[in-house]
Amino acid sequence: MSRTLASQIAAHVGQTVTLQGFLHWKRDLGGIQFALLRDRSGIVQVVVDKRFELPLAESSMRVVGEVVANAKAPGGYEVVAQEIEFYAKASEPSPIEIPKEEWRVNPETLLEYRYVSLRGEKARAPLKIQAALVRGFRSYLDSQGFTEIFTPKIVSAGAEGGSNLFGIDYFEHRAYLAQSPQLYKQIMVGVFERVYEVAPVFRAEQHATSRHLNEYLSLDVEMGFIESEQDVMDLEEELIRAMLDEARHTAAPECELLGVEWPNLAEMPRLEHPEARRILREELGMPVGADFNEEAERALGAWAKEKWGVDFLFISKYPESARPFYAYPEGDGSTRGFDLLFRGLEITSGGQRIHQYEVLVEQLKKKGNDPAHFAGYLEVFKYGMPPHGGFAIGAERLTQKLVGLPNVRYARAFPRDRHRLTP
Amino acid sequence: MSRTLASQIAAHVGQTVTLQGFLHWKRDLGGIQFALLRDRSGIVQVVVDKRFELPLAESSMRVVGEVVANAKAPGGYEVVAQEIEFYAKASEPSPIEIPKEEWRVNPETLLEYRYVSLRGEKARAPLKIQAALVRGFRSYLDSQGFTEIFTPKIVSAGAEGGSNLFGIDYFEHRAYLAQSPQLYKQIMVGVFERVYEVAPVFRAEQHATSRHLNEYLSLDVEMGFIESEQDVMDLEEELIRAMLDEARHTAAPECELLGVEWPNLAEMPRLEHPEARRILREELGMPVGADFNEEAERALGAWAKEKWGVDFLFISKYPESARPFYAYPEGDGSTRGFDLLFRGLEITSGGQRIHQYEVLVEQLKKKGNDPAHFAGYLEVFKYGMPPHGGFAIGAERLTQKLVGLPNVRYARAFPRDRHRLTP
Repeated sequence: MSRTLASQIAAHVGQTVTLQGFLHWKRDLGGIQFALLRDRSGIVQVVVDKRFELPLAESSMRVVGEVVANAKAPGGYEVVAQEIEFYAKASEPSPIEIPKEEWRVNPETLLEYRYVSLRGEKARAPLKIQAALVRGFRSYLDSQGFTEIFTPKIVSAGAEGGSNLFGIDYFEHRAYLAQSPQLYKQIMVGVFERVYEVAPVFRAEQHATSRHLNEYLSLDVEMGFIESEQDVMDLEEELIRAMLDEARHTAAPECELLGVEWPNLAEMPRLEHPEARRILREELGMPVGADFNEEAERALGAWAKEKWGVDFLFISKYPESARPFYAYPEGDGSTRGFDLLFRGLEITSGGQRIHQYEVLVEQLKKKGNDPAHFAGYLEVFKYGMPPHGGFAIGAERLTQKLVGLPNVRYARAFPRDRHRLTP
Repeated sequence: MSRTLASQIAAHVGQTVTLQGFLHWKRDLGGIQFALLRDRSGIVQVVVDKRFELPLAESSMRVVGEVVANAKAPGGYEVVAQEIEFYAKASEPSPIEIPKEEWRVNPETLLEYRYVSLRGEKARAPLKIQAALVRGFRSYLDSQGFTEIFTPKIVSAGAEGGSNLFGIDYFEHRAYLAQSPQLYKQIMVGVFERVYEVAPVFRAEQHATSRHLNEYLSLDVEMGFIESEQDVMDLEEELIRAMLDEARHTAAPECELLGVEWPNLAEMPRLEHPEARRILREELGMPVGADFNEEAERALGAWAKEKWGVDFLFISKYPESARPFYAYPEGDGSTRGFDLLFRGLEITSGGQRIHQYEVLVEQLKKKGNDPAHFAGYLEVFKYGMPPHGGFAIGAERLTQKLVGLPNVRYARAFPRDRHRLTP
């Protein structure tokens, strides 16, 4: 008999269905037992008579039974079991009580037992939403003539110099884990003009904060033949709208479960860096340097929400001192680099890049670098690179802020941080 | 003025269009110059009068001009330039003559200069086809209730023991690059039941052959609540059809350019291992062991093509000795493990996995392993895993065989092999 999902039972009242899933919870009322069966779509109550002995929670099972209406059952329907089979019985009680999931407490325990704690409906929902965001990312870019690329994660040098790189033993050579596909996506602009990549990046940062991961999913975009960084921000605005639309429509139950508050997608203002700095100093009383720290970003986010009612805020025209050497210089000390804040958290860094070989060499020197150390990076710029720019969205940070997670770790199935290498 | 792509000019005869791209090739006929402009969609001939000086090939450019019919021009149309602008002129001649691409010769040179050689139409086409195959992979699985997952590439131990792992310095710890998402996708069957991942995997293999890469794109699938490995092969059959359909429809020009011969998708027979071995021995005179080597696979592929007219061939019921410890044992020395050969090349390894804790421990011991070393792997099997199975498709090998590439390296933008770490 073909399988019915928990979310579909209302359409089968009076019929006999086959359910498959996990024993989420059980209760013995003497004459009768109640079980909750959890599958990928949700939870359904099963009425089980005393013939059947229910094993430990999390056992995997199959139930054949009749769907009946019951106003007291979760969702208004339940299944009266005629047959129950257990594929594998749990041999130990789950170290986490899945039905009681309180994922705001005791984070290290939840992460330690992630292989079972992820089964909780609230634990898994952010990952389902993230999958929808990523699907929206790809499908919007596909519709705009972009090509997906797959660039190497094992590299011979870092894109932004030597810091924060994890070293690898690559046979008899020293290699590193890519901290960004920056150079490769730029090279690929010469090939496909418009490219994107969805892949892990690796940062050997010592940070142990609620917003840092040492391995995260980077949603990278790069496009050629632009006029300026305004084209790049235009693209990102539309892209963000498409991604959130995809999540809203295809992960609706998960968004509802987590009480996702939909952000204002109508407006994403572009605040130039000097003006943002003025606001921080004069209106918010926060003296800041060229780059904004976490606190300053949070304050700007709150200010923009209060003043303009917006959740997304671009900060553009970053000064050269706060950007990497490849940021396109305006000539007045500023660059065509921008960040995108979402609810006060930086989720994107981007901008127009230098496409002229000589300018790149000049900027490298200005930053105190020896161009010889960047020979590999520089090579492609001898062959007519068009004006181009792009950005990267941190998938976990976007998910974290959309869903309202207290820590970015919960937006990744198996996070890697300063101290965590397992599970 | 909005941009027109090279592939669109036939629709604009008599109109003035703006083209953007790269100077693919130029010829000076004295009174008149011809240029070929290459963009992401193709190549168009541009007639350039002597006013304009054409720089080195590969310079990036913008051309404004009128589209006219010319039977002698490639594609039957050309653009008579009124205006030409160069965004960045190439400062050196390209080390590879892009228009003459003969990518069957001198592979090391082509790979050395991959950052420009990839611009060639024949060099980039396999990557465009691969992007379409991957898109087909995701969209078919999305339609079947699968969830995309993103698992860690930095791991504390290998999924199949300690060999072929690249070591990483992870702060004060030793870590490794994941050679497969095997355990993680199995864990996620407990969460989402049906999952897939598109991500790089890393193998520190010493091989330097035309079919090995040390970093490649693995298309991983895992599904729960199966009856047997037959369900997994059923899924893979339909999936392969959907992937090839997507490539055929959305990368049609690239398939045509490379002369892709469409494989027989109607039938993908399932040959059991003992029968395959018998054929190799008796019909093909190749004495073979439990596992089949490259030569044996090629011979079986050719045999199946000759005998049945098929391009895809499953070899099922592999013996325990040729499969990892987690392969589901039939009890008679065989397993529910299978390979899929495409034109005689193994592109998939898969099967049903063991879902019972005790059986897993027993199989580990039988293979001479100490279960204590696999404690992390075993943990999740204490919590009611359902019967499940899956497979992984090597994206580059599938692309290689579909397109007819002489070497799998050409199916990856920036390959990593035994000796190559750059570009």
